[in-house]
Amino acid sequence: MRTHTDYLVMETPNRYEIRDITDDVTRIVHDAGIAEGMVLVSAMHITASVFVNDHESGLWADIMTWLEELAPRKPDYLHHRTGEDNGDAHLKRMVLGHQVLLPITAGKLDLGPWERVHYGEFDGRRRKRVIVKVMGE
Amino acid sequence: MRTHTDYLVMETPNRYEIRDITDDVTRIVHDAGIAEGMVLVSAMHITASVFVNDHESGLWADIMTWLEELAPRKPDYLHHRTGEDNGDAHLKRMVLGHQVLLPITAGKLDLGPWERVHYGEFDGRRRKRVIVKVMGE
Amino acid sequence: MRTHTDYLVMETPNRYEIRDITDDVTRIVHDAGIAEGMVLVSAMHITASVFVNDHESGLWADIMTWLEELAPRKPDYLHHRTGEDNGDAHLKRMVLGHQVLLPITAGKLDLGPWERVHYGEFDGRRRKRVIVKVMGE
Repeated sequence: MRTHTDYLVMETPNRYEIRDITDDVTRIVHDAGIAEGMVLVSAMHITASVFVNDHESGLWADIMTWLEELAPRKPDYLHHRTGEDNGDAHLKRMVLGHQVLLPITAGKLDLGPWERVHYGEFDGRRRKRVIVKVMGE
Repeated sequence: MRTHTDYLVMETPNRYEIRDITDDVTRIVHDAGIAEGMVLVSAMHITASVFVNDHESGLWADIMTWLEELAPRKPDYLHHRTGEDNGDAHLKRMVLGHQVLLPITAGKLDLGPWERVHYGEFDGRRRKRVIVKVMGE
Repeated sequence: MRTHTDYLVMETPNRYEIRDITDDVTRIVHDAGIAEGMVLVSAMHITASVFVNDHESGLWADIMTWLEELAPRKPDYLHHRTGEDNGDAHLKRMVLGHQVLLPITAGKLDLGPWERVHYGEFDGRRRKRVIVKVMGE
């Protein structure tokens, strides 16, 4: 069994943003040289998500609108007593999830026709990391 | 380390449906002959879920009613500009998640007394796949 | 490849509760003696969650308030026809998710600066288990 660990650095210009990171993950899986196994893609910050969905800008806007309805940005979160103003981001990131585990078969990401890996940022404009860890043979 | 990869084909008669797929996963784990490890069960389509919950039809109906409240079927998703009409399905699938990783201990799925693996379909009546990938020894 | 399997026993005095279990997971990873790999932390009961977020009591209260809005405790879930009264717990646990997979690099949990693993209980006052399964080398 072998492992290969890499990190993506994310620093979005906007507070809220969605980015397709599938090509980055594909490149790391290729670098790892692992033919059969799995790759974990996991946000290392607690106000960001990693999720699988369609690469379609209309859907991305729908997701952000929907998350704002489910977990609105507002002043009165108790978390803000710490001086933070990102209570909504901590909740939004949990709706989408913060990690995915992608199968690798015959040296390639074994994804369905429309599956793309996305990074969801809910408190951006700062440097964050995503771990990409490959495990297999 | 060994891996074993299989795929379930799902084609539900209804647009919205929940199915218990635990027996299928159990069979594949048995076929894999892996005593210690993990099995990834992941929907390969972006309008379907894989999740763990109780096998109880009342709860299944509660889940569908609840998802319709959280992410209703309606015409005005921006995603529909592409010609699709399944914006709600893309959102519903994210509430439940699209994959689970189940532990295998002593040759068996190491689940709690009520844990059952389910497939959640939110845009059915078409052929879809679920990957079941076992990794271990 | 090696695996190491352990179980945490949870029995909360309150029906609803959040607990930081990072130290327990860290101890088990240390016991496993695995330098490179991953550890699965997964609730074995279907009314509990395992999730990663900030260790901050204000946020924990925000999470519980928010979950009560998204999936309120109320009598009229169909699931209650079975005699249960915990329909809300089955839904709440799905918003946060029931498992996480944590990377292990150079013998340690490879987490971001604020990432902490939590157990979320939504139907407590009874004995439950969380599986912690380490896999790697």
